This record gives sequence, structure tokens and C-alpha cells, in this order.
Amino acid sequence: MKKNVTIKDIAKELGVHHTTVSLALRNSKSIREETRKKVWDKANEMGYRPNRLAQGFRNKRSNTIGLLVPNIQHHFFAKFIAEFSEKANQEDYAVMVFQSNEKLATEKKNVEALIANRVAGALVSISKETIEANHFKAFNEEDIPLVFFDRTPTQTGLSRVVADNFHGAYQAVSQMIGKGRKRIAFITGSSHINVYHERLQGYQQALIDHGLPLNEELLIYGDFFMEDGIKGAKKLMQLSPQPDAILGVGDDVAIGVIKFLNGAGYKVPDDVAVIGFDNDPMGIAIEPELTTVDQPIKEMAESALQLLLKNINSDDKKPEEILLTPRILERKSC
Amino acid sequence: MKKNVTIKDIAKELGVHHTTVSLALRNSKSIREETRKKVWDKANEMGYRPNRLAQGFRNKRSNTIGLLVPNIQHHFFAKFIAEFSEKANQEDYAVMVFQSNEKLATEKKNVEALIANRVAGALVSISKETIEANHFKAFNEEDIPLVFFDRTPTQTGLSRVVADNFHGAYQAVSQMIGKGRKRIAFITGSSHINVYHERLQGYQQALIDHGLPLNEELLIYGDFFMEDGIKGAKKLMQLSPQPDAILGVGDDVAIGVIKFLNGAGYKVPDDVAVIGFDNDPMGIAIEPELTTVDQPIKEMAESALQLLLKNINSDDKKPEEILLTPRILERKSC
Repeated sequence: MKKNVTIKDIAKELGVHHTTVSLALRNSKSIREETRKKVWDKANEMGYRPNRLAQGFRNKRSNTIGLLVPNIQHHFFAKFIAEFSEKANQEDYAVMVFQSNEKLATEKKNVEALIANRVAGALVSISKETIEANHFKAFNEEDIPLVFFDRTPTQTGLSRVVADNFHGAYQAVSQMIGKGRKRIAFITGSSHINVYHERLQGYQQALIDHGLPLNEELLIYGDFFMEDGIKGAKKLMQLSPQPDAILGVGDDVAIGVIKFLNGAGYKVPDDVAVIGFDNDPMGIAIEPELTTVDQPIKEMAESALQLLLKNINSDDKKPEEILLTPRILERKSC
Repeated sequence: MKKNVTIKDIAKELGVHHTTVSLALRNSKSIREETRKKVWDKANEMGYRPNRLAQGFRNKRSNTIGLLVPNIQHHFFAKFIAEFSEKANQEDYAVMVFQSNEKLATEKKNVEALIANRVAGALVSISKETIEANHFKAFNEEDIPLVFFDRTPTQTGLSRVVADNFHGAYQAVSQMIGKGRKRIAFITGSSHINVYHERLQGYQQALIDHGLPLNEELLIYGDFFMEDGIKGAKKLMQLSPQPDAILGVGDDVAIGVIKFLNGAGYKVPDDVAVIGFDNDPMGIAIEPELTTVDQPIKEMAESALQLLLKNINSDDKKPEEILLTPRILERKSC
């Protein structure tokens, strides 16, 4: 094991005070450019490595951002984590990742773990079991900035970054209507989750605005897996008259719908048009390729990081909401 | 902001020495069960929260494990991160995630960031640009245990957890041969990556063992995207005679192959059998559903954590290699 090079070692080598070295390595403006460069050159030459753990301890806060999601494997969250951690790393923050596995009890434990690790800030998307947000107050008690994204509690007064789910569903249904569809079904998840609730409202508003009736039998509540799409489509195609378009609350559901329709001998989109949500890569594997509401994941990750950094670096922590617009990605299923 | 409850506050309330509280909260065996319970009850009542950052600083090491992968979004790594972080959390470790984005320069920066954060141990899968492992010596210099998984450097003397890629490809080709296929093609990635090199060797050995010739024209080197499968299949189907089976180095490649074959009017598996690697959910979206070599990701994550914890908690850090066996997941494409 190599001996760790300390700031004092560098100071001794250069014959300057250790505070000068410390300030120079933090690129402080109180240090002349010439000195700063000299210190950095010597530090590199000696193999100095900053100790974030010690810095974090001194500042009573780490340079780590905590990211808590329901499910790391789901394409939406995997892509979000990838985009977010890349940007955070560029800003010199490390990202600690936790998943609730859609369980409230695990989410509560994760909140305690994030606090125990004294993260500089937390970014959270809630589990499907989470109805209220009381367990997140712990962040506030510990003065840790908190931003929600995608799935957020319904309470007001929270900072959040979300896609305009209402608008996404509204656009999808409008596109179906534009292609002559009149009996448009929607297979959705539990409506206590903001994301699904807003998509349902967008679906209904688009029907109303185009003078189409809201038909209870065309609305199926399930979960958000492929299996839910298969079951939902089977039930819908037993109706008389049958639907001529089906919106899935996510791509998994929409792909289940197409699989059922293909297997049962229906033609997509001629008999039934299908649109999903999320631009999951699975949508390219299915035939016909899935038209989907593409969420601006990269922009969501960037906005969430900027909002969190603003809260970390300033005392002004008033809640802020950022709404980003999804767009339809046209492929072959509608 | 609520005042943090300290160990001394709890000790004062209970009228005991703070060392007693400290030992009790660490569930030390030197403390009587009755006392331990009393301390925990009081700590919970007072809203005590452990400070891992301070603990880490005192121990000169955090309770954080660093996980560095080429691409968080790829299904294999997303699932690995999910499985690994869940197990690590149960052992009271937090997981810090970095991605190299398949770039050597980013991988080097990530190594420095992991060291700066004084992770207790690091788990790494290398980028496709990484040929040698010198930049990982920094972990050793800092006395940070390091385990590689999946994609690993070829050097000896490293700890690693890998699937038996040779055996996986061998099984896949044997299954094709068992179904009467004689002209079996392989679309693979750069052979300097251990994973791809071993799959190539497994493919070749299976052909040799079954008395089939190694045919250069049936071997296509590309990358590991769907596009490589589409291009590779197009080239292969121009041969005369055509192949009657195609093995893809990953599911993305295999799905590209099926998409090309479906589009060009070939029947899968009657005209051409197809097998992939990884059990990506995309394989269920394609028609026919993809037969694939399913990697034991959960077991890999568990073994990697156990090996890393062993290295963290003991001074005996001799390199160890764990090889896990993949199995064929039979669906409809072979």
C-alpha cells in the first residue's frame, strides 16, 4: 500500500503553507493563477488523490447524490440513471442508487440509508404502494434537499420534475382520432399514481374535445406489465362493437396488446391501432414496430440535476415544478 | 432543521457511558441483550440516525461499494445493478454507480472518483475500449478490494465473477446441431473482449466435437447492436449455400437477425434457427420468441458481493475466480 499523499506533504515540498495548497486545490479565487498551477502540477507529480470522504466529513455532507427509484431494471429508470449519473459525474458528484422494488417498506428503509450516508441531495421516484409522503419529511428535518421526478406524491409544496403526462396521452388519442378511430380503449395502471392519473385525464379530455363519448367499458384498470396488455386486449376484443384503437399506459402493456392481437389474427394497425408510452427498446422488436409517447428522459435528468444543485448550493429552497413535454414517436402501429 | 441526536445525547438520557451506547448500537456482543434493547428503544424514541459519513471517516473507509459498468441501460447491467444493490443494501452497504459509456478515458476518471470517495470495495466490468488493466492498480495502491465481473481484463491474478461463456455458446450450438442444423453461422463482437472471445471458442469447439467444419465465411465480426444482426444476417443469406442457423453474440444481435429474416420472407426457425445471449425482455416481443442463453445474473450479483465482502473484511486478499453456468432458455426460434 502506497502512503497517501496529503495536502501537508505537498505544502512541505513547495515550501508554502498548507492552507495555500488546500485553497489552490479547490481552485479558490483567492489564490493567484501561477500558484494554483504550481500546486496542481506538484500534486499530480506526487500522485495526490483528494479524499471526498474527509472533505464530506469536514463539510458535514458528502459530494454524493442519492437516487431512489421503484425499479432499476425498467427501461425508463435505467435510462434515467444512466443520463443522470453521467451529468452528475461531470459536476463532480457521485450517485448512490437505491431501489424500492415498488415496496413502501423498502422505500422507507432507503430514505433512512440515504440520510445515514449524508447525501448532499436526494432525487426520488415513488413506489406504487406509496400514497402519502410523510416518510420523506426526514430529508427536510436533516436539511437534505429533495426533488421528486416522474412518479411523485400528490401533495403540494414539493419540488418535482415530471413529463406532461396529460399532454402525452392527449396527443396519442388525438393522433388515433386523426386516423379515423372512434372507439378508443385505454389500459391503465392504478390511478392513485400521478403518472397514470394524468394519462387517464389526457385520454378523457381528448375524447371530449373531439366529441367522442367516454365509455366505461373501454377503460381497463390493471398493472403495467405485458401480461396486463394481453389480458386487457383479450377482454376488449370480446366487446361488441370492438375497439378500433388501444392506448397502453406503458410500452410493456402496448406490446402485450399487439402480441394478443397478432396471435388472434387481427391486423395492427388496420383493425386496431396501438400506441404505448416510454420508447422502450422492446417496441422495435415487435411487429409492427410500436408507435409510442417518447418521454424526454435526458431533459428530465438534466433538469432534476440542475434543480437539485440549485437547492444544494443555495439557502433559497422554495419548491419548484418543472414540466417537460413528451412527443409522439411515430412507427408502424398507428 | 432538527438538531441531530448524538450517541452522547442518548447516553445522557439513559445515564450510561457513551461507549456503552456506541457498542449497543453496533449490536456488539460485549453488551447484555437487556441493555442493547434499552439503548435501541431510547435511540428510536429520540429519533437517532446513524451518520455513516462520520463512521466512514473514523474507519478511513465508507460503507459504500462502487459499481462501474460499461452501460447502465443495457438489460444485463441494469438487472445486475438491481440484484446487486438490493443484496448490498441488506448487508448495510450503499452502492455508488458509475458508467464508462464504453470509453476507456471515462473508465479511468471513474476509477479516480471511486478512490476519491474511498469506497470500501469496487466491482468493475470493463469498457470495450479497455485492453489492459494498469489503471486499476490504483485500487491496489489504495488498499481497496477490487472484483471484476462479466467483462474482465485477460491478466491473471485478478478476482472475478463470470458466466461460463464458452459453455453457453457450446450448448447453443449443440442444440442447433441436435435439431439437424449443419451450416451454423456466428455474428460476434470484437474478440479482444473476454466474453466474446470465449463465446467464439465455445462455438468453434462445438462444431469440431460434432465433426462439422469451421467455415470462415460463416463467422461475422461486428458490434453488439441490433443493426449488426440485421447487417450480418443480410450478408450471410447471400451465401450459397445459405446458413441454416445463426447464433447472435447477444439478444440485440439475434433480434436484428430475426427482423431481417422475417422481412426477407424466411421462416424462423424452419429455414433458419436463431439463438441469442442474455435473456433480454426484447426477446419476448419478437415473433417467434427468441431462444436465448440465460446468464445467471442473480447468482453473479450474489457471488460478486460475497467475494467483495470477504476481501473487505479480511486481510487475506488472494485472487479468486468464480465461474457460473448459464443455461438455454428454450422459446420458439430454435
